[in-house]
Amino acid sequence: MGVVIPLEEGMNRQASVKPLVDLTKADMDRVNQLILSKAGSDVQMIPEVANHLISSGGKRLRPMLTLASATMFGYRGEAHIKLATSVEFMHTATLLHDDVVDESDLRRGKSTARMIWGNQASVLVGDFLLGQAFRMMVEVGSLDALDVLSTAASVIAEGEVLQLSVAKNMETTEDDYLSVIRAKTAALFSAACEVGPIVAQASKAERNALRSYGINLGLAFQLIDDVLDYGGSAKELGKNVGDDFREGKITLPVVLAYRRGTDQERAFWRQAIETGDNDSHALEKAMGLLAKYGSLKDTVARAEHYSSIARDALAPLPDSGEKDALMEVIAFCLSRAH
Amino acid sequence: MGVVIPLEEGMNRQASVKPLVDLTKADMDRVNQLILSKAGSDVQMIPEVANHLISSGGKRLRPMLTLASATMFGYRGEAHIKLATSVEFMHTATLLHDDVVDESDLRRGKSTARMIWGNQASVLVGDFLLGQAFRMMVEVGSLDALDVLSTAASVIAEGEVLQLSVAKNMETTEDDYLSVIRAKTAALFSAACEVGPIVAQASKAERNALRSYGINLGLAFQLIDDVLDYGGSAKELGKNVGDDFREGKITLPVVLAYRRGTDQERAFWRQAIETGDNDSHALEKAMGLLAKYGSLKDTVARAEHYSSIARDALAPLPDSGEKDALMEVIAFCLSRAH
Repeated sequence: MGVVIPLEEGMNRQASVKPLVDLTKADMDRVNQLILSKAGSDVQMIPEVANHLISSGGKRLRPMLTLASATMFGYRGEAHIKLATSVEFMHTATLLHDDVVDESDLRRGKSTARMIWGNQASVLVGDFLLGQAFRMMVEVGSLDALDVLSTAASVIAEGEVLQLSVAKNMETTEDDYLSVIRAKTAALFSAACEVGPIVAQASKAERNALRSYGINLGLAFQLIDDVLDYGGSAKELGKNVGDDFREGKITLPVVLAYRRGTDQERAFWRQAIETGDNDSHALEKAMGLLAKYGSLKDTVARAEHYSSIARDALAPLPDSGEKDALMEVIAFCLSRAH
Repeated sequence: MGVVIPLEEGMNRQASVKPLVDLTKADMDRVNQLILSKAGSDVQMIPEVANHLISSGGKRLRPMLTLASATMFGYRGEAHIKLATSVEFMHTATLLHDDVVDESDLRRGKSTARMIWGNQASVLVGDFLLGQAFRMMVEVGSLDALDVLSTAASVIAEGEVLQLSVAKNMETTEDDYLSVIRAKTAALFSAACEVGPIVAQASKAERNALRSYGINLGLAFQLIDDVLDYGGSAKELGKNVGDDFREGKITLPVVLAYRRGTDQERAFWRQAIETGDNDSHALEKAMGLLAKYGSLKDTVARAEHYSSIARDALAPLPDSGEKDALMEVIAFCLSRAH
């Protein structure tokens, strides 16, 4: 990568999600069982398509966030298992629809469902998983949790449409782009974290803290993902370096390089992104411009900004294993870009 | 058409939805306002795509069913407006996704949204409307209504996938086909009718009556639609005669003609449906076989069977304008095939 960012004092270079994984392990076993059971159907194609994606090795970060956000407030019931599963289904449904919308061939290093079963099955199985997610939320019976998650579902879809309408438009500003990722990525992180304190009947302030943690973690997570697309390896990413570029996707590194470039360089970006002139030679040139203008480094700096907000959101909460684990997720998220 | 079915005694040949339209007019004005407001978004493409379909002259039968099913039990609150709007949004979302799945060019006589804005926008705006539908349901705050509608959402998607897996398979039985339309069409009619008595806090028996009415009306409605595809005009249908045939869709008329045919005729159906040899000459031959085996007439007879169940479901309820209007909807549904 070659991207170096100043580490905050005390920040762990070896930060990992392991504390969160360990802490939620018993509950996640039950979430994983519920995932398999609720993705089941007499209609054979449904579990086939759903399990293809479900078993493809996603980290399941979002459901772990829901579980920890509930137990950190002393929650000891069952509702967080169903809500965590709902959150993962909402995420899976979004991925199935995204792959159709983006015409993607590869996801997490495997062929996308649409390449194997077609766009039709991807759209409809996504709809089915979304329906199952809502049924589980309704079973939990918390109208507040339903409000948070159903609002997230609308906002995510709205963000995806917004992304469509800014797609391939090089005049997209950083604020436009933030609106997109706030809706399409951060809203679900936020909802995943907020339903924990809701079912735990935590205070309004605690609920707000977790919501703020979630949205800012989500923003940082997406920005680092955008950086990795220009610098990770296919194995780490589960997709190929430069995929965003080849798909003509506007992400923050590109927005920054474009806005900082010369007229001639801007003409190059328009040619590459808007008209699809994006072969390996163009990718090489794009990487050079990203380096020239510090676009990757500065995107990481932006991610660090949101990470700081996430840390400060959690700061006033009493110490707990969950709080430590959630703090370390922030550090882990940033460490991926090192 | 040439299809003649024996009319039940007292059944009105001029049956129409007018009584239901008149009865629900004031409430439907509010539903229509809510539809426009909740399909709104700062993301310009969302109202564009949504309103294209919303304003394309659908009858809005489903929300009218919800309204009448609530007021017939004396409901005087506001919840039925939101639930009726949710039901229409669920329907609209399904149509947007269906057009992508079926690769349809024409819906209600207009170009489909996917032909104008692309598959991507159709998938995502469908997701947005579904999210908005859930948000409105949550605002109503009835967990029973949420249960009924979220279950319907899952069942509809499951039915669509089932339809995908029986598609172009000529060995589909009548029961297989009924499972498909029970899920993909009748489930939403049923839910639309059941949430009325739920918000009106009607009895369990009344709730069951409306659910049964809804599911059987939905079955009859879909079967008559299937008949009309081989006999209506593009103007009436909003699609072209023979569309189902050209798309290789298995519907009950085809199932019956296939199962009643000679080996040679079955070979013709397989050729037409499974391998897509379905030009206008083939359509003409198919129409001949449908006539030869009375497939359209008998599909209407099956629809009449479900209509009878729907009528008997409502029969024990006290007389009311709503009951009369709902009864006439059954007759109207059948009369379309005359």
